[in-house]
Amino acid sequence: MRLRLTPREDSYYDLFAASANNLVTASRLLVEIISVDSDRSALIEKMAACEHAGDEHTHAIMRRLNESFITPFDREDIYRLASSLDDIMDYMEAAADLIGLYQIEHLPKEVVRQVEVLERASELTAEAMPRLRSMKNLNEYWIEINRLENQADQIYRRLLAKLFGGEYDALTVLKMKEVIDQLEGAADAFEHVANTIESIALKDG
Amino acid sequence: MRLRLTPREDSYYDLFAASANNLVTASRLLVEIISVDSDRSALIEKMAACEHAGDEHTHAIMRRLNESFITPFDREDIYRLASSLDDIMDYMEAAADLIGLYQIEHLPKEVVRQVEVLERASELTAEAMPRLRSMKNLNEYWIEINRLENQADQIYRRLLAKLFGGEYDALTVLKMKEVIDQLEGAADAFEHVANTIESIALKDG
Amino acid sequence: MRLRLTPREDSYYDLFAASANNLVTASRLLVEIISVDSDRSALIEKMAACEHAGDEHTHAIMRRLNESFITPFDREDIYRLASSLDDIMDYMEAAADLIGLYQIEHLPKEVVRQVEVLERASELTAEAMPRLRSMKNLNEYWIEINRLENQADQIYRRLLAKLFGGEYDALTVLKMKEVIDQLEGAADAFEHVANTIESIALKDG
Repeated sequence: MRLRLTPREDSYYDLFAASANNLVTASRLLVEIISVDSDRSALIEKMAACEHAGDEHTHAIMRRLNESFITPFDREDIYRLASSLDDIMDYMEAAADLIGLYQIEHLPKEVVRQVEVLERASELTAEAMPRLRSMKNLNEYWIEINRLENQADQIYRRLLAKLFGGEYDALTVLKMKEVIDQLEGAADAFEHVANTIESIALKDG
Repeated sequence: MRLRLTPREDSYYDLFAASANNLVTASRLLVEIISVDSDRSALIEKMAACEHAGDEHTHAIMRRLNESFITPFDREDIYRLASSLDDIMDYMEAAADLIGLYQIEHLPKEVVRQVEVLERASELTAEAMPRLRSMKNLNEYWIEINRLENQADQIYRRLLAKLFGGEYDALTVLKMKEVIDQLEGAADAFEHVANTIESIALKDG
Repeated sequence: MRLRLTPREDSYYDLFAASANNLVTASRLLVEIISVDSDRSALIEKMAACEHAGDEHTHAIMRRLNESFITPFDREDIYRLASSLDDIMDYMEAAADLIGLYQIEHLPKEVVRQVEVLERASELTAEAMPRLRSMKNLNEYWIEINRLENQADQIYRRLLAKLFGGEYDALTVLKMKEVIDQLEGAADAFEHVANTIESIALKDG
C-alpha cells in the first residue's frame, strides 16, 4: 500500500475522477445530439453546463497544485493530465456547439461511430482514474485507449474521404469538417491523457 | 516592499511591459487596417515591423532566462508568459498579413468589434504588467480579461453564423474565416496571459 | 572534452541522430510522392512505415527520460527536442497521407519547392545532432534553419495567394490547402527544433 503523506493528497484522485466522469456524461450527450435530427438546443445547453462543470474541476486541480508543496506525482504531470482532460471536454463541447451554430441537420452516419468511440474512451478513462492510487492495472487501460484512437483515426479518415468525395457542396464540407475535426481532436486528447498516465506509472515503477 | 535579490531582476518586468506595450501599438494598427478600405499595404508593413520588435522582446526574455540562476518567479511561468505575449502578436500580425495576401476589401462590420476587444485587452495587459512587481490589484485585471474573452467569443460566434449563412461564396468564407480565426486566437491568448499571471499571483500570495 | 557521467548517456545522442536521420528518409519520400503523378500508393505506405519508425525513436527517448536520474541536458529540453522531431515526422506523414486520401493528382509546382526546403532542413538537422555532444559549430546550423524557415514561409504565402487566386474551385482549394498547411507545419517545427538546440547550447556556454 502506498503511504499517504497528507490527507489532502486524496483530492487529486477525486478531482481527476470527477473530471473524467464528467466526460462520460458529455460523451453520452454527444451521442444523443448526433442521433436526433431535431430539438437539439436543450441538449446543446446541457453540454454547455457540462463544460462549465469541467472548468471548475480543472480550476480546482490547478488551485490545489499552486498551493501544495507535496504532490502525489510530478507537478508537471498533474498539470498535463488536468489540461488534457479539460481539452477533451472543450473539443466535445465545441463539436456540439458548432452543430447548433451551423444548424447542421443531417450528419453522415459515420459520425455516430466517431462519437461512440469517444463514449467508450470516456468510460475507460473514468474507470482508470481511481487506479492511479494503486498504480495497478493501468497497462490494459492505455493499450485499449491506443486501440480506440487508431479506430477513431480510421473512422475520421473515411469521413474525410466521404466529405470530399463530391457528394456535398463546399460550404457543407466546411461546416461538417469543423465538427468532425473537433471530434477527432477529442480522440487524440484521450491518447494524451493515456500517455501522461503511462509516464506517471513508469516513473512510479 | 518586496526584496530584490539582484538589480538585474528588474528587467523581466521592463521586458514584459515592453512586450505588452507593443501589443497596444499592434492592436491600434489592426483597428486602422480593418477600418480603411484601401491603401492598407503601408499599415500592414508597419504591423510586420511591430511583429519583429515583439520577437526581439521575446528573445531578450528567453536569453535572460537561460542566463539567470535567480528569477523573480518560476522559470516555467516566465517562459509561459513570454510565449503567450508572443503568440498574441503573431495572431494579430497573421490577421493583418492575410487581409493583404488575400486582398480582402470588405470585412463584415462585426470584425471591427472583434478588433476593438483586442485593443481593450492589450491596454489592460499593458497596464497590468508593472503591477507584477507589487503583485497588487491583479485580480480586477484577470476578471476583466475573462469578461472580454467571453465577449470576443460571442462576436466570433455571430461572425461564424453570418459567414456560413449563405451570403458569401465558399472561397470568400474560407478567406474571411482564416482572418477571424486569427483574431479569435489572439483573444484566447490574452486569456492564457491572464491565467499565467493569476497562477503567478496565487503562488506569491 | 565533456565528461560523461555514465556510458548510458550516449544513447540520447544516438536516439536523436536516429530520429533526425529518419526525417531525411521521410523528406526524400515526400519529394518522390510530389514528383510522380501516379502509383503513389506504395510510396505513401513507405511513409507510414517511416512514421512508425519515428514513433519508436520518440518512445525510446521518453522511456529513457523517465528512467534516468542523470541527463546530458535539462529534462524539459530533451522532452521538447524529442517532441519537435516527432512533430516534423507527423506533419510530413500527414501531408503524404492526405495526398493519397484526397486522391490529389496534380499539385502546384511550388509544392515541390516547399518539399525541397524540408529535405534540406532534414539534412542539416541530421548533421547537427552529433554536434550536440561537443556543443560545437551549432551556430551556423540554427542560422541556416531560420533562413530556410523564412524561405518556406515565402513559398507558402505564394502558394496561398495562388490557391485563392481564382484558378481552383473551393473543394480543390480546401484539399490542397490541407496538404500545404501540413508541409508549412513541418517547416515551422524544424525551427522549434533549432530553437531548442539554441537554448541547450546557451545554457551550456
